[in-house]
Amino acid sequence: MMNEHTRKKLHTWMEGEGVRAMMARLFTLGEIGMSDRDEAESAEIRTEPQGRTRLALDDADRQARDRLVAWMRELSLEVRVDAMGNIFGVLPAAEGGEHLPPLMIGSHIDTVGNAGPLDGVYGVLAGLTLLHAFRAAETLPPRPIIAAAFTNEEGVRYQPDMMGSLVYAGGYPLEQALDTRGIDGTRLGDELTRIGYAGSYPPGHVTPFAYLELHVEQGPVLDHEKMQIGAVTGVQGIFWQNVTVEGAANHAGTTPTALRHDAGLAAARAGLFLRELAVRSGTLATVGSLRLEPGLINVVPGKAVFSVDMRDPDADRLAAAQAEFAAFLPRLEQEEGVRVSSRVLVNFAPVAFAPAVIDRVEAAAQRQGFSCRRMVSGAGHDAQMMARICPTGMIFVPSRAGLSHCPQEFTGPEDLRRGVLTLLETALDLLDAEDIGTK
Amino acid sequence: MMNEHTRKKLHTWMEGEGVRAMMARLFTLGEIGMSDRDEAESAEIRTEPQGRTRLALDDADRQARDRLVAWMRELSLEVRVDAMGNIFGVLPAAEGGEHLPPLMIGSHIDTVGNAGPLDGVYGVLAGLTLLHAFRAAETLPPRPIIAAAFTNEEGVRYQPDMMGSLVYAGGYPLEQALDTRGIDGTRLGDELTRIGYAGSYPPGHVTPFAYLELHVEQGPVLDHEKMQIGAVTGVQGIFWQNVTVEGAANHAGTTPTALRHDAGLAAARAGLFLRELAVRSGTLATVGSLRLEPGLINVVPGKAVFSVDMRDPDADRLAAAQAEFAAFLPRLEQEEGVRVSSRVLVNFAPVAFAPAVIDRVEAAAQRQGFSCRRMVSGAGHDAQMMARICPTGMIFVPSRAGLSHCPQEFTGPEDLRRGVLTLLETALDLLDAEDIGTK
Repeated sequence: MMNEHTRKKLHTWMEGEGVRAMMARLFTLGEIGMSDRDEAESAEIRTEPQGRTRLALDDADRQARDRLVAWMRELSLEVRVDAMGNIFGVLPAAEGGEHLPPLMIGSHIDTVGNAGPLDGVYGVLAGLTLLHAFRAAETLPPRPIIAAAFTNEEGVRYQPDMMGSLVYAGGYPLEQALDTRGIDGTRLGDELTRIGYAGSYPPGHVTPFAYLELHVEQGPVLDHEKMQIGAVTGVQGIFWQNVTVEGAANHAGTTPTALRHDAGLAAARAGLFLRELAVRSGTLATVGSLRLEPGLINVVPGKAVFSVDMRDPDADRLAAAQAEFAAFLPRLEQEEGVRVSSRVLVNFAPVAFAPAVIDRVEAAAQRQGFSCRRMVSGAGHDAQMMARICPTGMIFVPSRAGLSHCPQEFTGPEDLRRGVLTLLETALDLLDAEDIGTK
Repeated sequence: MMNEHTRKKLHTWMEGEGVRAMMARLFTLGEIGMSDRDEAESAEIRTEPQGRTRLALDDADRQARDRLVAWMRELSLEVRVDAMGNIFGVLPAAEGGEHLPPLMIGSHIDTVGNAGPLDGVYGVLAGLTLLHAFRAAETLPPRPIIAAAFTNEEGVRYQPDMMGSLVYAGGYPLEQALDTRGIDGTRLGDELTRIGYAGSYPPGHVTPFAYLELHVEQGPVLDHEKMQIGAVTGVQGIFWQNVTVEGAANHAGTTPTALRHDAGLAAARAGLFLRELAVRSGTLATVGSLRLEPGLINVVPGKAVFSVDMRDPDADRLAAAQAEFAAFLPRLEQEEGVRVSSRVLVNFAPVAFAPAVIDRVEAAAQRQGFSCRRMVSGAGHDAQMMARICPTGMIFVPSRAGLSHCPQEFTGPEDLRRGVLTLLETALDLLDAEDIGTK
């Protein structure tokens, strides 16, 4: 048990110095990967926020990693990099706790293209600042605490997403991950070596006592309901599929409607079917990408390739939605005279977090007078991978208007502060716990 | 009047030597703009036909132009190039006809990307071979005959399409055409100079007595009905529009269906609306190109840009379809919570060809025992521009399965022969005519 005095000291430093230090670090990392301001702004005043792009293992990601590692070293943390490029800053335990399983607090610092400043980075820097608090208080925790940044959470450049934590949790072979080809043709393992983050630790080198992740909600629920903290109970199941429709490319001016095999129209019908399915069943369904070939104004599309993203916290309902869409495709083939093929890219079952962690998140928020609701995460997170190997929980703060994966992503300073303090209090409660189970 | 002996001599040469010469020229031009065979074929046997790409004024187009001009010179034709890059090979008239308005026979030699071998080229080479027949018969026509190749019919690199003939017919200012920016950022006038085809003749330098164009149908009607020749009575009205839908890019996993402003879904609804409109009204409607932004699997599309192609031989029906679609867009805005804007790219009214020419095409086909039907062209052609300034007609031959604008574009040798002979007989009838009116 840490004594009340120590807890108070940590808390006081965190809500003052700590939050300011974290904000400064957020700003610093948020600048890395921005397009050249001179070019972007020219002479006019910028009215829209600017996005940054740090795709996994690109030069901007390397620069952000270097910055993170430098901060870890400034705090005299032991820096470990594993073969997957996951970065760990380790704060040792007080005497007697050296060999206890560590508490791990993590997230990611890679981004999507033209991203906001918070997704992932906020959680990593909150974890780092929590270790900073211990350094500032000149005290050590009863077990080690690790601040983690996982490789390639976004999955934009290399698929699947959440790759670093998935490999860490033993859910995906390291060799296969290293052999992944990116959208730019690069091999992940080569890029890891190129940027200097092919580390020597084996992924999964330590099994945490518990894993905590603080993250912006990336959805509108907390903002809409004016709630301050989300105690995340789990993550929706996620199903990703690529669908290819092959019809016949024909002249738009000479081919009678009845003789067409319009792949674009078939894709549009699939999009509308998914919308109706979503409204009817509650399963979220999105067609986010769609490409037509040849894609010319005067040619009936001969080919359409589109993506399907389906999510549901209920595994049965998600499976039913998948099955219903799968049954629709042969009808579409027949009615439009096209051929349809599909490939599953991702199929993650819903994940339930550990009640022992969820309860402590909720208690920590309420104790500080923050309004809090339990909620399911709509987005995927590294936490869902870590939940495979240790008791896991997440803390959400509101995203204004639910916007994320865009430069408009925003969470106010007070909300960011409440998130950091809830993380700290939850972590201290967990550090004080004797046994919270293994999952 | 040309005497029967001369007509017979021309016909006999044309159906033997002439057709073989044209086929050889078709093959030669068809090779220009093909991707490198070594690279494309490697060691395996090619089973699919190979396409060629000669976008207006690119290097392949220049090479094809050089080849065409060389053939014109070999036939001792006077070569004229106008300021729009349109190429003319002039066969002089027999004594006494030097100053009569010429008969013009033309089409284009530029192609779409990955095109078939016939679209445009067939008509240009048939015209050239018709002049070749006069040289072979060592006779001259009662009025000059011009074989023409118009610049940028396809409109892929520079818009609008049919630009060379449109400028020739006085429907578009030369300076504006030369200032056109291409999809590759180039200025049309600069490219014309670069490839050496910025000629000195003013566009429209001569008003033809009549204009004839032989072309593959590019649609399935003749092939489907097993007809050999189409006597084209006119060209459908064509309406091109670009539509931009602006919604809100949101996370696909966290944004409830009811809170979405899905630009991709709105575009899909527009596509389905157009299909229903086409089925109901008879107006052809096509969404050939569609782009989603950001176009990521896990982001609700915030923006969709798509094209609309509508065609109808009936001007009123085409206008009604346009109006109906325009009235749908505000409904779509309201129901999906998106903003829609649109820009008209092309709006050509339906064109009626000259009965004096149509009748002669039909008569020429029937006289030779070729099955023939009157039909409206679904595609746009240079002939519709020339119809603004002189009596005009077109001859269609079947396109197998209606395929065009793709490497599979095919018309059998017998059909190509029937087209050339119908062109010859129609031309001879027109050359014998005293007065066919001015439009």
